[in-house]
Amino acid sequence: MMSEVGSRMDHECNTRQETPRGGNEMRDNGGARGGDEMRGREEIYQKALAAREAAWVLATLPRTVKDRALNDMASALIDNSEAILEANGKDVDQAKASGASKAFLDRLLLTPKRIEDMAKGLRDVASLPDPVGEVVATWTRPNGLRLEKVRVPFGVIAIIYEARPNVTADAAGLALKSGNAVILRGSSTTLASNKAIVSTLVSALGPSGVPAGSVQLIESPGHEVVGDLLKRRDLIDVVIPRGGAGLINMVVENSRIPVIETGVGNCHVFVDSSADIEMARDIVINAKCQRPAVCNAMETLLVHEAIAPALLPDLGEKLRERGVELRACPRAKEYLPYAKDATESDWETEFLDLILAVKVVKDVGEAISHIRRYGTKHSEAIVTRDEKNARRFMDEVDAAAVYVNASTRFTDGGEFGFGAEMGISTQKLHARGPIGLPELTTIKYKVYGQGHVRA
Amino acid sequence: MMSEVGSRMDHECNTRQETPRGGNEMRDNGGARGGDEMRGREEIYQKALAAREAAWVLATLPRTVKDRALNDMASALIDNSEAILEANGKDVDQAKASGASKAFLDRLLLTPKRIEDMAKGLRDVASLPDPVGEVVATWTRPNGLRLEKVRVPFGVIAIIYEARPNVTADAAGLALKSGNAVILRGSSTTLASNKAIVSTLVSALGPSGVPAGSVQLIESPGHEVVGDLLKRRDLIDVVIPRGGAGLINMVVENSRIPVIETGVGNCHVFVDSSADIEMARDIVINAKCQRPAVCNAMETLLVHEAIAPALLPDLGEKLRERGVELRACPRAKEYLPYAKDATESDWETEFLDLILAVKVVKDVGEAISHIRRYGTKHSEAIVTRDEKNARRFMDEVDAAAVYVNASTRFTDGGEFGFGAEMGISTQKLHARGPIGLPELTTIKYKVYGQGHVRA
Repeated sequence: MMSEVGSRMDHECNTRQETPRGGNEMRDNGGARGGDEMRGREEIYQKALAAREAAWVLATLPRTVKDRALNDMASALIDNSEAILEANGKDVDQAKASGASKAFLDRLLLTPKRIEDMAKGLRDVASLPDPVGEVVATWTRPNGLRLEKVRVPFGVIAIIYEARPNVTADAAGLALKSGNAVILRGSSTTLASNKAIVSTLVSALGPSGVPAGSVQLIESPGHEVVGDLLKRRDLIDVVIPRGGAGLINMVVENSRIPVIETGVGNCHVFVDSSADIEMARDIVINAKCQRPAVCNAMETLLVHEAIAPALLPDLGEKLRERGVELRACPRAKEYLPYAKDATESDWETEFLDLILAVKVVKDVGEAISHIRRYGTKHSEAIVTRDEKNARRFMDEVDAAAVYVNASTRFTDGGEFGFGAEMGISTQKLHARGPIGLPELTTIKYKVYGQGHVRA
Repeated sequence: MMSEVGSRMDHECNTRQETPRGGNEMRDNGGARGGDEMRGREEIYQKALAAREAAWVLATLPRTVKDRALNDMASALIDNSEAILEANGKDVDQAKASGASKAFLDRLLLTPKRIEDMAKGLRDVASLPDPVGEVVATWTRPNGLRLEKVRVPFGVIAIIYEARPNVTADAAGLALKSGNAVILRGSSTTLASNKAIVSTLVSALGPSGVPAGSVQLIESPGHEVVGDLLKRRDLIDVVIPRGGAGLINMVVENSRIPVIETGVGNCHVFVDSSADIEMARDIVINAKCQRPAVCNAMETLLVHEAIAPALLPDLGEKLRERGVELRACPRAKEYLPYAKDATESDWETEFLDLILAVKVVKDVGEAISHIRRYGTKHSEAIVTRDEKNARRFMDEVDAAAVYVNASTRFTDGGEFGFGAEMGISTQKLHARGPIGLPELTTIKYKVYGQGHVRA
């Protein structure tokens, strides 16, 4: 079932400061004028309608046609690099002029290498199996009625995201492969880059037979436009927000269209009394330090009281060496005298930074209780040699991914073997964990009778 | 994969006039006073919290415990029939006094036979396979990380429904079997009946080991209570509205919790030129007349122009004999001179009554276009002997269930072999078509490492 295509770029969920000054772009954008609002609404209607019409064609296209389009899109990105870089330069200049942070500029910036990565991403998606048409189940009823449960595309997906031009190509590729038309709404700070990328992608669709309407970019300014888009339940089947907590909450609060939420990760590692100390140390350091700004990084370390004396002093030093700020409960402070005092809010916070909350607990039960209270149901790990405790933790902790003796950092479409992902879902409806190609489809029942009527 | 438990009660979606006077209960209830509002909010918080705590226990209960509880609940309903009927009598008297319609009173009324049906429903659910714990997929990555994708309960499900006391027991049974705690919010016109049923069900939980908090009934009056409930994203995982279009829209508009929509069915039957005329006639009569008030009944008949002269005159007479009012396009009227003129709104309307719109089309393409424009993506059928047209219709029509040579009336959990259902989903996210037990669960990834860290 699983494809082994090389792992893609690490997913980039929930990194901070998506707007130039770290504010909430959706709110800070300023009130649009009446005329703009009208134009925005009209743009959404026209583009959503065009996407809907394209979706009817896309839904039944064979894999070969879609794969050709994806490979052509990849080539077009390379061929058109110069124009894309030029457009991106304008966005970067404007962001610099508005005082954007270094981290923001780094995410906004395109380079020839980054365009090559986008192209490679599209080619990787082309090489993945097509989920559309897969017969999930088939059976015949006692009355002779034959049923097939078949994977079909959603139809039209809207993606709302922040200042990451690479998402534009990634999302378009995943949507196309799964037979969906896509409506893209990126940050206004990336508009020139996104326009250049989308026009490049669309220019490549023609020869393959994929309708040009399959990829749509919403260009109108103002946050009201997103509000209008989120009301078009008549034309859009699913909305996926990709970005920080502010963006996701805004979409959840305002959408009348079903949402696949890509959420916050307040992830924990619990080191049980029976843990292998070296293994525990390696996992903790990896989960915290390997890429602290992403949603599957650990935010709180829970340590069994029996192993705390052997584990914490050395581990604390190693984390300090890596620049990690520790915030500890009173019992953990016995072994980490240099740590700050942890406050209630530290248990609740997704730091997305080199900060770690540390708590000593009396057993696996207290660890589970703590995670139930403060966790966000993303990724949770136990390090243990006790099978019973491992099983209990895996069964009782409610999260998209639960780990025994592995780093939480593996919650990722590439690492799971999905080949590519649209984000990590922390909701329970439809998709949970990495959103791969099958998660971008729905099902349809095909029912075959010979004149069957209901008695 | 499919269970063959005897088909349950026909699902009762979208029947009309759920409130005594056919109005929208949620709006007509009148403004609650401030004190009531506070009490309502507090009731929701306390009961949702209790449900959440029960859900942690329920999630890992073995099948035997849940099945015993379901059978005990069934016995308790029978044993407590007298008290339930007495409470129901109060609801019926009050509804009569407020001038409720005959249809409304019929749905509200409980009888010993109906209580037996509720008990049988619970026993049937007990005999169905337990979806929880099913390993949907398992694989090992090249680095040795082993993954399991496992079915787990949602946690807490809220069901919002109308004046049907049988839903109270049905929903509680389905939720319990799928390992979910349930919060029930029925119509205030059914409150005495629902209280009697829920206290009976809860009294039966103790001996089995299922926590008493697993089944909660919200009793506070006023529609604001529902609004408050729909905001408790922190405590409730999924909301399922069961009822008419007004109720469903209210939930979709107001919920911040993910919704499984059980929607409207504007269903079509298309009779192709090559159809067997007798088969077409039987299917049309069944789809329209067998139970016109439910969502999978046909509302518009589409007829290929080449078969209209042979089909429509006789079929029209047979429909008239059954009391069906016909509303026809000009071309169909040539064969149905007694029909009313169909208006634009007739193509859009879910009549849920013995009314049928009839349109002559030039081919399968025009039939598909009509369904795309007016259909609600519920159930759509083609009657044909042409395999190519059948395939095209099945592939190009976007609906939960598409049929060839069978009545649309089969879209039903019992008829599909699911044994029981929580309703028919017309949304594309998570569940589409009949919502059986597996659709009341989500998944979790269990990941097993040997000290794996991410490079």
